Amino acid sequence: MMDFPTWMSAVQDRTEAMLSHILPSTEKAPSRLHEAMRYSVLEGGKRVRPLLCHATGALFGTAPEILDAPAAAVELIHAYSLVHDDLPAMDNDVLRRGKPTCHVEFDEATALLVGDALQALAFELIATPQVTLPPIRQLEMVRLLGEASGSRGMAGGQAFDLQSVGRQLDVPELEFMHIHKTGALIRAAVLLGAHVGSANAEQLALLSRHAHRVGLLFQVVDDILDASTDTATLGKTAGKDAASNKPTYVTLLGIGAAKELAEQLRTEAHLALVPFGASANRLTELTDFIVDRTF
Amino acid sequence: MMDFPTWMSAVQDRTEAMLSHILPSTEKAPSRLHEAMRYSVLEGGKRVRPLLCHATGALFGTAPEILDAPAAAVELIHAYSLVHDDLPAMDNDVLRRGKPTCHVEFDEATALLVGDALQALAFELIATPQVTLPPIRQLEMVRLLGEASGSRGMAGGQAFDLQSVGRQLDVPELEFMHIHKTGALIRAAVLLGAHVGSANAEQLALLSRHAHRVGLLFQVVDDILDASTDTATLGKTAGKDAASNKPTYVTLLGIGAAKELAEQLRTEAHLALVPFGASANRLTELTDFIVDRTF
Repeated sequence: MMDFPTWMSAVQDRTEAMLSHILPSTEKAPSRLHEAMRYSVLEGGKRVRPLLCHATGALFGTAPEILDAPAAAVELIHAYSLVHDDLPAMDNDVLRRGKPTCHVEFDEATALLVGDALQALAFELIATPQVTLPPIRQLEMVRLLGEASGSRGMAGGQAFDLQSVGRQLDVPELEFMHIHKTGALIRAAVLLGAHVGSANAEQLALLSRHAHRVGLLFQVVDDILDASTDTATLGKTAGKDAASNKPTYVTLLGIGAAKELAEQLRTEAHLALVPFGASANRLTELTDFIVDRTF
Repeated sequence: MMDFPTWMSAVQDRTEAMLSHILPSTEKAPSRLHEAMRYSVLEGGKRVRPLLCHATGALFGTAPEILDAPAAAVELIHAYSLVHDDLPAMDNDVLRRGKPTCHVEFDEATALLVGDALQALAFELIATPQVTLPPIRQLEMVRLLGEASGSRGMAGGQAFDLQSVGRQLDVPELEFMHIHKTGALIRAAVLLGAHVGSANAEQLALLSRHAHRVGLLFQVVDDILDASTDTATLGKTAGKDAASNKPTYVTLLGIGAAKELAEQLRTEAHLALVPFGASANRLTELTDFIVDRTF
């Protein structure tokens, strides 16, 4: 088995290649929209969701070629949510992945359409027939991605987030928000990989539990990094949540208890994978990478 | 066969029922988002796209029950595009279907999320397995809706529209814009109905030609109405395109030639249906309704 950094780099490379292939060329009309779509998706991000999708597929011995489309589809949904999130009506952010945000580099109307078009592209991509996947399984994957993205998933979590600004949330409320805002798509990334691997109901339940912990873990670590890292290292505006009076795990728990919570979630995430034995090693390594990352 | 107004009213009623059923209840969290989603979709609009989907399905003798989901999915895409189109960064409109637009009634961030969540819901709905539809056919319907909504369809048409403000377009450029902005989704509505009806490739090609003409027709008639009808009758701001210096068929051709163009497109739309004989009567009637409507 190749070592983790080599595997990660290989998945990031093939994800980039897939995204570049599926995003329309800037030579196709409307060229400015396509330019802005490519600007917002390519050459940026850790590709955590594609990594989760591939690591889960690997658990079932699935060939990476069959995982490229669902992995890229989840990343397109994630990328669209960042573009819309950064708009003045939402977080009003100017920096993302070390570059000006889409509406700063282009304009607000274009950024709005970029997000809309990326979402449509994600569904077009994940619905493109793959001979190795039973159509009924693939249809279930479309439905799963739709649910994870919508009002009872990611978009719903963002609506909770809007309502929470300036309010005092407790930890269960914060958890509820993040299970939707970040967790829903992370869970989708894992479950899509599992569906491609023809997981059965019991395996889906275990992986769903794992992904639930990873989703929270990801946010707790994000909050820790946001409170303790500078803007240049993060590639996005640091300390913004505290400055805008948004509740975070660090502001609610303090940095020490937030770090303890991360360790507890890491343990629970690992435990959910125990029944899979060594076949889950890649997913375990990826979980550790998500906890131990510094950017 | 029931008469056209009775049929139309029945399809509008069942579309409303399906939309109300599929839109999450305001009692489910996040309640404000769900309230805004329901506000933006229910009790409004002529439901032209669902009507086209049902009329096309009827051509193949398809039971309306199987057409409800794709018809509602197309309408959800249409509704989301209106919510985003009305935002200050786009058309900045305050009135839609006789009510304050979503961002006026709620707020901009909520309107952004409403559009995003409605798009996700459309794909979740159209991917929900229907026992009477082969999964591979249904997967093709998801792909078709994605393509029609994205950067080479509706969202792309809106990007052209942005670029055209204050510019002098000629009629082919205007047609190119509308084939994408309005036409793509109208074509999708027809082709989804055809797929549910198990249309073969030749039938799909004929219906695609029909839908292409209907899409343009719809826009030409919209431009004529916009130039000649008051705001109260339209239920949306009248004369806005001319006021904002947007090119329309009326400003480019004059009202007389625009009406002649509508008649020519009606004839071409009818001709594409001739091979279907009497089975296409409903779709022919609907085409006439789209030309002769006064609101």
